Amino acid sequence: MKARVHVMLKNGVLDPQGAAVRHALGALGFDGVERVRQGKVIDLDLAEGTTEAQVRDMCEKLLANTVIESYSIELG
Amino acid sequence: MKARVHVMLKNGVLDPQGAAVRHALGALGFDGVERVRQGKVIDLDLAEGTTEAQVRDMCEKLLANTVIESYSIELG
Repeated sequence: MKARVHVMLKNGVLDPQGAAVRHALGALGFDGVERVRQGKVIDLDLAEGTTEAQVRDMCEKLLANTVIESYSIELG
Repeated sequence: MKARVHVMLKNGVLDPQGAAVRHALGALGFDGVERVRQGKVIDLDLAEGTTEAQVRDMCEKLLANTVIESYSIELG
Protein backbone atom coordinates (compact mmCIF):
# COMPACT_ATOMS: atom_id res chain seq x y z
CA MET A 1 0.00 0.00 0.00
CA LYS A 2 0.99 3.57 -0.49
CA ALA A 3 0.75 6.66 1.66
CA ARG A 4 1.46 10.26 0.77
CA VAL A 5 2.34 12.68 3.55
CA HIS A 6 2.38 16.44 3.13
CA VAL A 7 4.39 18.46 5.64
CA MET A 8 3.87 22.22 5.55
CA LEU A 9 5.01 25.00 7.83
CA LYS A 10 2.13 26.14 9.99
CA ASN A 11 0.45 29.40 9.16
CA GLY A 12 2.27 32.21 10.87
CA VAL A 13 5.64 30.49 10.62
CA LEU A 14 7.94 32.38 8.29
CA ASP A 15 8.60 30.46 5.08
CA PRO A 16 11.77 31.89 3.53
CA GLN A 17 11.86 29.26 0.78
CA GLY A 18 8.35 30.17 -0.28
CA ALA A 19 9.19 33.86 -0.19
CA ALA A 20 12.28 33.25 -2.35
CA VAL A 21 10.20 31.34 -4.89
CA ARG A 22 7.62 34.13 -5.03
CA HIS A 23 10.33 36.69 -5.54
CA ALA A 24 12.00 34.65 -8.27
CA LEU A 25 8.70 34.10 -10.10
CA GLY A 26 8.14 37.86 -10.06
CA ALA A 27 11.64 38.44 -11.43
CA LEU A 28 10.88 36.01 -14.25
CA GLY A 29 7.85 38.08 -15.22
CA PHE A 30 5.10 36.01 -13.64
CA ASP A 31 2.75 38.60 -12.24
CA GLY A 32 -0.11 37.79 -9.96
CA VAL A 33 1.68 35.34 -7.72
CA GLU A 34 0.35 36.49 -4.39
CA ARG A 35 1.70 33.96 -1.97
CA VAL A 36 3.87 30.86 -2.08
CA ARG A 37 4.31 28.24 0.62
CA GLN A 38 6.75 25.43 0.13
CA GLY A 39 6.63 22.14 1.93
CA LYS A 40 7.65 18.53 1.68
CA VAL A 41 5.85 15.58 0.21
CA ILE A 42 6.86 12.10 1.28
CA ASP A 43 5.65 9.05 -0.62
CA LEU A 44 5.81 5.84 1.35
CA ASP A 45 5.48 2.28 0.05
CA LEU A 46 4.29 0.31 3.04
CA ALA A 47 3.66 -3.32 3.86
CA GLU A 48 0.02 -4.34 3.50
CA GLY A 49 -1.88 -3.87 6.71
CA THR A 50 -0.07 -0.75 7.86
CA THR A 51 -2.63 1.46 9.54
CA GLU A 52 -3.17 5.19 9.31
CA ALA A 53 -2.37 5.35 13.04
CA GLN A 54 1.09 3.95 12.31
CA VAL A 55 1.68 6.52 9.58
CA ARG A 56 0.53 9.24 11.99
CA ASP A 57 3.05 7.92 14.49
CA MET A 58 5.81 8.18 11.83
CA CYS A 59 4.81 11.81 11.25
CA GLU A 60 4.82 12.66 14.94
CA LYS A 61 8.15 10.97 15.61
CA LEU A 62 10.15 11.77 12.49
CA LEU A 63 8.55 13.24 9.41
CA ALA A 64 7.21 16.49 10.83
CA ASN A 65 8.41 18.89 13.46
CA THR A 66 5.00 19.44 14.99
CA VAL A 67 6.07 22.60 16.80
CA ILE A 68 6.25 24.47 13.51
CA GLU A 69 4.89 22.05 10.90
CA SER A 70 1.54 20.48 10.20
CA TYR A 71 1.06 17.29 8.25
CA SER A 72 -1.66 15.51 6.37
CA ILE A 73 -1.87 11.88 5.33
CA GLU A 74 -3.48 10.37 2.25
CA LEU A 75 -3.67 6.59 2.05
CA GLY A 76 -3.87 5.23 -1.47
CA MET B 1 -7.22 30.89 -7.13
CA LYS B 2 -4.87 28.28 -5.77
CA ALA B 3 -2.53 25.82 -7.38
CA ARG B 4 -0.58 23.01 -5.81
CA VAL B 5 2.54 21.75 -7.55
CA HIS B 6 4.29 18.51 -6.67
CA VAL B 7 7.91 18.14 -7.72
CA MET B 8 9.41 14.66 -7.40
CA LEU B 9 12.68 13.16 -8.53
CA LYS B 10 12.10 11.00 -11.59
CA ASN B 11 12.15 7.26 -11.16
CA GLY B 12 15.69 6.03 -11.53
CA VAL B 13 17.18 9.18 -10.02
CA LEU B 14 18.81 8.44 -6.69
CA ASP B 15 16.88 9.99 -3.80
CA PRO B 16 19.25 10.15 -0.81
CA GLN B 17 16.74 12.09 1.32
CA GLY B 18 14.15 9.39 0.80
CA ALA B 19 16.68 6.69 1.58
CA ALA B 20 17.68 8.50 4.79
CA VAL B 21 14.05 8.75 5.87
CA ARG B 22 13.50 5.04 5.19
CA HIS B 23 16.58 4.15 7.20
CA ALA B 24 15.54 6.41 10.09
CA LEU B 25 12.02 4.96 10.17
CA GLY B 26 13.54 1.47 10.36
CA ALA B 27 15.80 2.57 13.21
CA LEU B 28 12.74 3.88 15.08
CA GLY B 29 11.14 0.46 14.83
CA PHE B 30 8.76 1.04 11.94
CA ASP B 31 8.96 -2.19 9.98
CA GLY B 32 7.47 -2.66 6.58
CA VAL B 33 8.54 0.66 5.08
CA GLU B 34 9.62 -0.59 1.69
CA ARG B 35 10.42 2.58 -0.20
CA VAL B 36 10.38 6.31 0.49
CA ARG B 37 10.59 9.11 -2.05
CA GLN B 38 10.74 12.68 -0.89
CA GLY B 39 9.79 15.66 -2.99
CA LYS B 40 8.59 19.22 -2.77
CA VAL B 41 5.10 20.63 -2.64
CA ILE B 42 4.57 24.24 -3.60
CA ASP B 43 1.27 25.97 -2.85
CA LEU B 44 0.64 29.05 -4.96
CA ASP B 45 -1.99 31.73 -4.41
CA LEU B 46 -2.52 33.21 -7.85
CA ALA B 47 -4.47 36.08 -9.32
CA GLU B 48 -7.84 35.04 -10.77
CA GLY B 49 -7.57 34.10 -14.40
CA THR B 50 -4.13 32.51 -14.19
CA THR B 51 -4.15 29.54 -16.53
CA GLU B 52 -2.76 26.07 -16.08
CA ALA B 53 -0.42 26.82 -19.00
CA GLN B 54 1.10 29.67 -17.00
CA VAL B 55 1.62 27.42 -13.99
CA ARG B 56 3.21 24.84 -16.28
CA ASP B 57 5.51 27.57 -17.54
CA MET B 58 6.51 28.40 -13.93
CA CYS B 59 7.34 24.74 -13.38
CA GLU B 60 9.44 24.50 -16.53
CA LYS B 61 11.32 27.72 -15.86
CA LEU B 62 11.80 27.65 -12.10
CA LEU B 63 10.01 25.18 -9.90
CA ALA B 64 11.28 21.92 -11.33
CA ASN B 65 14.59 20.84 -12.82
CA THR B 66 13.03 18.83 -15.62
CA VAL B 67 16.23 16.92 -16.32
CA ILE B 68 15.86 14.99 -13.09
CA GLU B 69 12.47 16.01 -11.70
CA SER B 70 8.89 15.56 -12.78
CA TYR B 71 6.04 17.77 -11.67
CA SER B 72 2.29 17.67 -11.46
CA ILE B 73 -0.18 20.52 -11.11
CA GLU B 74 -3.51 20.59 -9.29
CA LEU B 75 -5.65 23.67 -9.68
CA GLY B 76 -8.05 24.26 -6.84
